[in-house]
Amino acid sequence: MMSRTMNEAFPLISLPDGAPERGFAVSEFEQRVAKAQAGMANAGFDGLLFTTEPEIRYFTGFLTRFWLSPTRPWFLLVPASGNPVAIVPSIGRECFEATWLDDVRCWDSPQPRDEGIALLADTLRELPGEKARIGILEGAETHLRMPLGDFRRLCASLPSAVFEDATELVRQLRMVKSPAETAKIAHACAIVSGVFDAFAEHLSGGMSEIEIFRRFKIACLEAGIDDVDYLVGGAGPGGYRNIISPPSTRRVEDGDILMLDTGSTFDGYYCDFDRNFAFGHVNEMAARAQDALIEATEAGLRAARPGATCAEVFHAMRRVLDKDFPGGSGVGRMGHGLGMQLTEWPSFAANDDTVLQPGMVLTLEPSADLPGGKLLVHEEDFLLTPDGPVLLTTPAPAAIPVIS
Amino acid sequence: MMSRTMNEAFPLISLPDGAPERGFAVSEFEQRVAKAQAGMANAGFDGLLFTTEPEIRYFTGFLTRFWLSPTRPWFLLVPASGNPVAIVPSIGRECFEATWLDDVRCWDSPQPRDEGIALLADTLRELPGEKARIGILEGAETHLRMPLGDFRRLCASLPSAVFEDATELVRQLRMVKSPAETAKIAHACAIVSGVFDAFAEHLSGGMSEIEIFRRFKIACLEAGIDDVDYLVGGAGPGGYRNIISPPSTRRVEDGDILMLDTGSTFDGYYCDFDRNFAFGHVNEMAARAQDALIEATEAGLRAARPGATCAEVFHAMRRVLDKDFPGGSGVGRMGHGLGMQLTEWPSFAANDDTVLQPGMVLTLEPSADLPGGKLLVHEEDFLLTPDGPVLLTTPAPAAIPVIS
Repeated sequence: MMSRTMNEAFPLISLPDGAPERGFAVSEFEQRVAKAQAGMANAGFDGLLFTTEPEIRYFTGFLTRFWLSPTRPWFLLVPASGNPVAIVPSIGRECFEATWLDDVRCWDSPQPRDEGIALLADTLRELPGEKARIGILEGAETHLRMPLGDFRRLCASLPSAVFEDATELVRQLRMVKSPAETAKIAHACAIVSGVFDAFAEHLSGGMSEIEIFRRFKIACLEAGIDDVDYLVGGAGPGGYRNIISPPSTRRVEDGDILMLDTGSTFDGYYCDFDRNFAFGHVNEMAARAQDALIEATEAGLRAARPGATCAEVFHAMRRVLDKDFPGGSGVGRMGHGLGMQLTEWPSFAANDDTVLQPGMVLTLEPSADLPGGKLLVHEEDFLLTPDGPVLLTTPAPAAIPVIS
Repeated sequence: MMSRTMNEAFPLISLPDGAPERGFAVSEFEQRVAKAQAGMANAGFDGLLFTTEPEIRYFTGFLTRFWLSPTRPWFLLVPASGNPVAIVPSIGRECFEATWLDDVRCWDSPQPRDEGIALLADTLRELPGEKARIGILEGAETHLRMPLGDFRRLCASLPSAVFEDATELVRQLRMVKSPAETAKIAHACAIVSGVFDAFAEHLSGGMSEIEIFRRFKIACLEAGIDDVDYLVGGAGPGGYRNIISPPSTRRVEDGDILMLDTGSTFDGYYCDFDRNFAFGHVNEMAARAQDALIEATEAGLRAARPGATCAEVFHAMRRVLDKDFPGGSGVGRMGHGLGMQLTEWPSFAANDDTVLQPGMVLTLEPSADLPGGKLLVHEEDFLLTPDGPVLLTTPAPAAIPVIS
């Protein structure tokens, strides 16, 4: 299937009818654990300890919005061999027992004086052992999702154990998506592509940003999206001032350019892309910027081959933009990985030498700085195959659609 | 205004027409900082360093969904005197310069080799000083939202500074809401109360949980909610098996009880409550459990007076439930604070001796264990005034509504 809405044709993914099945086969979790254990053997880890939502979901399938409550920590131990062990608060027992795991340990929670730490320490002593080298996430784009004081207490109660950074191992695993993961991302991208394609009908001058955002969220839900977790953007005369704001009460006017950037999910997997709409007309500067953004996206797609680095793709895009739109805005990169999180490693940035591999799912997001502190952005999502990129988003029209 | 849908009457908050204004007056942020600085003087802190969304928003007003991207950390320093200083990635410059702050420092990001740490260390050296005692959040229900490795590097680059836990100070501040904060929570509660009251019309046997959840989200957005961040629950014959699941593909049947528990937001403030619906009929056990839950909620409302402890309120509810529904399910508490987060300190739990104060916004959420590993829950939100609780949610009907 080919799409000619950009200047050049790039292949668009071919999807089966209907939504992908929810969840994953047990064999997929087993493969993820096997790969992690191979990496652990290689790096000399006796266990991996996880506290964050994406990693715990990656190895167990545990999917819940309950992570929004900060009260209770959740722990997952991936031992050097055998299945992962969940050490989770009592409220999660039934959910974890319904996963593929066979060892689920619970403490009565909330219990701030010992929020699972004794149980976790016992489990670490029993499985990786007193003197284990335990991998945790300490590196870029990670955090420890438990009270720091509790982590200090855990370390103190295992004085012979060593906790060391395992970010690179997990990053290598998670950056390459399985076909089942890609199907969920592609489904989210396809739904939202359809919503964007029809969204001009919902727009008219005088609407407030809040109203526009609300309409967009409802349209995504009606089209089959599970949650519109991320919707940012805004409108302004000839461009917008930042790309991370919530909607304001301001009403769109003739000459405005509106940008909507959404991370909407299906079964816990994100799309992440944006589209521009113009009200009344597109001024010359914005039209030129849009041309440059499309051209930069195409240059990025051509450069994104297996074996290329993220920095090379970045520079390919930067060379296009530098002709008319030098300077890099504050965004600092021009795309990134995506999947269980809105943004994931790697970054299309000058300082990211990650080598692209087939199976990566990525966004390209060039931005053009305009006079007066404004900018224009454009974003598409793609799967990297051995033959190069396959688009997951129906590419944006070459020219910004105008709402009359 | 009185509501008689429960067995007893409890006052319901009286709200002005229309939505509260978005954002806060600068004077409100100044008051929050002044209170924090008084607490810091008392506790001997030279500065407070924040990395998490609620705290940074609390002192600055910075509201964005961009926190979903884990790539960039954000830092806020509240010095012992003077206004807070933001140390933020370049993508946030324009947003932070639009807040009430006058000192916004940015680094080019992403830059994993120095993701703001040098700039942050310089700022800490300059303001609280080389030998400062700096408060961070290490306690219950907190985490450090930056790579642990970067935190280690920060500590190493400030060898004479001391980082110590300031959770109690921040907890005391945030637990008591201002009238402007309460107005936002109350508005979210009122909107969702209206959605729940009319939601039986949207329900019919044979709908899948996924379809029901989607309808509910759309109804909330149409009624004026900004985001339905949290929607969990499910349905099952005579009760459900857990209270944190996403919807399944299962279709509701005669005899099912459906529970929807939502944390929906207005201007970044949550409501958090749930409602039960029955399909066809309510079996005797579920009807008795609902009676006990309503009675326990009423007992909790009577016990929740300024000066009482959370544990006392918990036991007042527990005494009601123990008559017919002993055991505590895995939930571990029967309500909690709410506001900028879905759940906040304190907890209505046996181990929480927090003394209730006027201005706290809280939920009561008793749960009854049923035979066969099922449970039933019920939740209402209230503001504690000097005279006792004022309901923010229109109380649930005494009996579970039946969808015929």
